[in-house]
Amino acid sequence: MATFGSPGEYLTALAESTAPPAGFSLSTTRISFTPTERPTQEPYAMDLSLVLAEAPTDSFAFMCTSNRVAGASVQLARRRAGQPLFRGILVNNRIANVAVRRGLADAKELVLSLGERLGVPPEELLSVSTGIIGWRLPVPEMVAAFGPLADGLGGFGPPEIARSIMTTDSYPKCRTVEVGGGRITAIAKGAGMIEPNLATMLVFILTDLDLDRDVVRKALSEAVEESFNLISVDGDQSTSDLVALMSSRRGAKVTPEEFGDALTGVCRAVAEDIVRNGEGAGHVIRVTVSGAKDGPEAGAFGKAVVNSPLVKTAVYGNDPNVGRILSALGDYAGNAGVDLDPDRLEIRVGEEPVYHDGAFDLNRDREQALSSYLQETAMNPRIKGFPQHDLAVEISVTMHRGGASATVIGCDLTNEYIRENADYRS
Amino acid sequence: MATFGSPGEYLTALAESTAPPAGFSLSTTRISFTPTERPTQEPYAMDLSLVLAEAPTDSFAFMCTSNRVAGASVQLARRRAGQPLFRGILVNNRIANVAVRRGLADAKELVLSLGERLGVPPEELLSVSTGIIGWRLPVPEMVAAFGPLADGLGGFGPPEIARSIMTTDSYPKCRTVEVGGGRITAIAKGAGMIEPNLATMLVFILTDLDLDRDVVRKALSEAVEESFNLISVDGDQSTSDLVALMSSRRGAKVTPEEFGDALTGVCRAVAEDIVRNGEGAGHVIRVTVSGAKDGPEAGAFGKAVVNSPLVKTAVYGNDPNVGRILSALGDYAGNAGVDLDPDRLEIRVGEEPVYHDGAFDLNRDREQALSSYLQETAMNPRIKGFPQHDLAVEISVTMHRGGASATVIGCDLTNEYIRENADYRS
Repeated sequence: MATFGSPGEYLTALAESTAPPAGFSLSTTRISFTPTERPTQEPYAMDLSLVLAEAPTDSFAFMCTSNRVAGASVQLARRRAGQPLFRGILVNNRIANVAVRRGLADAKELVLSLGERLGVPPEELLSVSTGIIGWRLPVPEMVAAFGPLADGLGGFGPPEIARSIMTTDSYPKCRTVEVGGGRITAIAKGAGMIEPNLATMLVFILTDLDLDRDVVRKALSEAVEESFNLISVDGDQSTSDLVALMSSRRGAKVTPEEFGDALTGVCRAVAEDIVRNGEGAGHVIRVTVSGAKDGPEAGAFGKAVVNSPLVKTAVYGNDPNVGRILSALGDYAGNAGVDLDPDRLEIRVGEEPVYHDGAFDLNRDREQALSSYLQETAMNPRIKGFPQHDLAVEISVTMHRGGASATVIGCDLTNEYIRENADYRS
Repeated sequence: MATFGSPGEYLTALAESTAPPAGFSLSTTRISFTPTERPTQEPYAMDLSLVLAEAPTDSFAFMCTSNRVAGASVQLARRRAGQPLFRGILVNNRIANVAVRRGLADAKELVLSLGERLGVPPEELLSVSTGIIGWRLPVPEMVAAFGPLADGLGGFGPPEIARSIMTTDSYPKCRTVEVGGGRITAIAKGAGMIEPNLATMLVFILTDLDLDRDVVRKALSEAVEESFNLISVDGDQSTSDLVALMSSRRGAKVTPEEFGDALTGVCRAVAEDIVRNGEGAGHVIRVTVSGAKDGPEAGAFGKAVVNSPLVKTAVYGNDPNVGRILSALGDYAGNAGVDLDPDRLEIRVGEEPVYHDGAFDLNRDREQALSSYLQETAMNPRIKGFPQHDLAVEISVTMHRGGASATVIGCDLTNEYIRENADYRS
């Protein structure tokens, strides 16, 4: 990721660096409606997007939230996963279609109507929703827009779809990688309620690489483990998280290893994009835990640090209150029953060895260096519409308990996060 | 707790409603020092407090943090717990004495010098510290103040000690209850880093009720389980949390049941005081989970709701975004592997049945009623120095899984929390 000076510069770069793989058509349109659950009568705008393979494919995979209150999208995706063929995904923002009386029926009605319009069997289509929980989708208004949506197919690129699926995201996020004469393109949205396994996160990954269903399923599962399951904005996991992968099989064949590596690379890049655009984020924080007993332990300690409100607020304030990092590690160890030995821990922030041999190693010069480092890696959370740079606060924890490591990516906690989440629906 | 209009009104009421039990003397004094770890040379003020039984007692108990990075206070308290006799506690704010090279040695030096001054064996004294992690205590400046501290014994009441142990607390917190001709007085501090088992929380409970060591230990353990272990301000558990109970045995005998009930009552009251004075708190949130399989399950679901940043920020914004409550429950269930059935859940906010029979039950009137309810229960987080009222947002979750229930007390997440924690050391 380069550095951009304005939303326009960023969007131009995004349009130049991303393209749909062969065999896919994209479309988007906007509708207006008045939610019945809202005290005021102001109309809401909703974007509808369509990601469609030009022919049915047997090579597709979904990974869904583990939240026990799964939205209708996720319930439907779980059913679609077993189908022999799949064709495309309808996406709406603004309303999540979760925990409403006719939620699943509404989702089915949408794919039925859309299928009629497109001449596609409804079981090859999925309706995916993101936004407010507990409100009903405006089904008639959505169905009425399927004509323009179908007519627009092929007229839009990944950045435009990425923009149309946004909720509290402040800029569109997508990435394309070329591999073995083919292409993988990921289109992502997610800004808050982000704690994977998965997150309030929708990621649509399209490829033309010609791989069997089993290969894409295994590769997606492994890539998610190494990317979206290691990010956290606020520790909240959504009811509607979904990562979908579809191959048109129109392109070259590559080995499963080549595909897996390229897919993991795209997923990690998009995962960090999501954190960088996290609600009100003022710093990206990368915590690398090494010397852990196993990968899950490394990831859990990393998340304990990036999810600590006290670590997050200190980073936001450019205040190197490094004691909070140690406290977060000890707090997690105590709760999880891990026999952590503080005397064998090492903690570095940037290049500074702040804790080793059982004690902090602080002095005026080091505090000054840490404070400058936090200022240099800061983003202004009020500047919206493009990523300001690709710097992060690097926190490194060495545990001397084993050979496993993990890098967890999170962000700080700012006034802008509070403002966005206190006012989300207003 | 009544309603107060100013800090003065509150302090007057506190002074009138609290008193030390027979057999205890209290003192406090203030020192100035320059931390060596800080880039600037401005002096820091530190308050020293002393809570002293007039004679050694065998009836005392401590409960400590489960954070694996325990501060020197906690390490020392664990050793003191096995002593036959105990006499008193020295408390300092501003520096926590955690993870510094000579931390435990410094704590021992303090009790040695204080013991010499008071004519008390050092093993009957405990030094307790709260504040910044990773900085050293100013031992020489502290020892130099032991003269005035000892001279002041008996000249101070619980509210003055409660004020002197404050860090980011905005007002002193203490409670006295009279029972069976005796008295239990709790003096508490804690405002952030609050997620018990225990919290960044220091609570000193003094009583003259004449009970054996075994009785006070069991009663304290049970009371903590029902009070401090069911509150959360920010989910962060500190390295220095401590609840200490001492009886002078100068008063009446009561039954263990009478004592236990009175102690639990005082602890619950002080626990809610701590949350109400939570850093930047704009609402107190009480989540009552009933119909759970067991008490820990009820408590865990309650904490999942009060710790969700999205629930907390919605409450702060007086925005009845009740979908986030359901999402937090489902997120916890998914992570914990609890087979939660959304169709059997009921959720009420205040008097409003917002979710039942598998779906939200929302309409314009209900949204308006919920929004008004959140406005009525709000506190202004910028008004400091006294509790503005005793109202709370009541969220009730019925699970229909069993007969257990728990009430967890938390608070919202506000701009004022961010400001206080981003600027804490500045």
